[in-house]
Amino acid sequence: MVDYPIPKKKRPSRKKSPKRNRGMALEKLVDEANRFYLEQDRAVIHKKPTPIQTVHVDYPAREKAKITEAYYRKPSTTDYNGIYKGFYIDFDVKETNHKTSYALKNVHDHQIEHLRRVKDHGGLAFLIIHIKKEDAFFLLPFERIEPYLARAESGRKSMTFAEIAAEGFEIVEGYRPRLDYLKAVDSYLDNK
Amino acid sequence: MVDYPIPKKKRPSRKKSPKRNRGMALEKLVDEANRFYLEQDRAVIHKKPTPIQTVHVDYPAREKAKITEAYYRKPSTTDYNGIYKGFYIDFDVKETNHKTSYALKNVHDHQIEHLRRVKDHGGLAFLIIHIKKEDAFFLLPFERIEPYLARAESGRKSMTFAEIAAEGFEIVEGYRPRLDYLKAVDSYLDNK
Repeated sequence: MVDYPIPKKKRPSRKKSPKRNRGMALEKLVDEANRFYLEQDRAVIHKKPTPIQTVHVDYPAREKAKITEAYYRKPSTTDYNGIYKGFYIDFDVKETNHKTSYALKNVHDHQIEHLRRVKDHGGLAFLIIHIKKEDAFFLLPFERIEPYLARAESGRKSMTFAEIAAEGFEIVEGYRPRLDYLKAVDSYLDNK
Repeated sequence: MVDYPIPKKKRPSRKKSPKRNRGMALEKLVDEANRFYLEQDRAVIHKKPTPIQTVHVDYPAREKAKITEAYYRKPSTTDYNGIYKGFYIDFDVKETNHKTSYALKNVHDHQIEHLRRVKDHGGLAFLIIHIKKEDAFFLLPFERIEPYLARAESGRKSMTFAEIAAEGFEIVEGYRPRLDYLKAVDSYLDNK
């Protein structure tokens, strides 16, 4: 295909595109991508349900069971897992409104422990981080976060956006699915 | 070690052992095994929470959020997944009180569809079946169930216990964990 210049007014607006997903929560974008991957038979990745402790359930006659008292429980793993290209894949999604860095305290201990286990057992463990200020998305492999977790023990307790960009794989927005994060997983696999 | 005969009265009772788990639900045995595997760092396998649709949540001051109206949703996958020896592993557990066979209608369409996808993507997809009458447990790989699902289209709609024993890998009861099903996964991998 000839790569001739696109007339200026038809060029996709650089201003509009980075803001396209404003307001659409990252989880929704990932769920949409997962539905697409399932339809296209590219991967089998699901969000885990939120763990809930039920205390009281009513069983009204001829109606479905109604839970009348329940509480949220603390999850012990991450939100997403599944299989892609034969790999066990496991990740959590994070958003930040911060202007320059991502505070590592937002990656909870149980998530760190779980992701480390997955990595040690040969799975692909990572975070997907949405830097809202720049409307940029990065896949950040867990093993590349580990040195920063170690640094946080005695020093800086966050990763700068420059560090995230250097260690991670950018997820470029597309049309269908909008957040085609498996492309970033492919780059990660190529660089592993 | 010398393999001398154990005095008769000290031999583990063959009569007692097969009934040991009577009354303990299969899910509890699998959960116990998963906790043990996690502690021993042998595998990372978790039960997925039951999917629940919350309708009303109260947020009393200084107390934790209380869900006051919610309903069970239909799961779209199986109950268990995780990673073992680098493999993505995915399964459901089934119990039967039947005397001679297991009715395949108990494997729901969404489970069949999900397990088939997992198998096609290179994961280990199977059922763990507890035949209560014999207090026997079998790991039954999904690809070995498929011919019987095909048969059920026009013929017999169940698998006989003899067929399950022939196609599956028996899970022999142990001490810790009581249901050491990863041994059966090993046999399955050796025979794959």
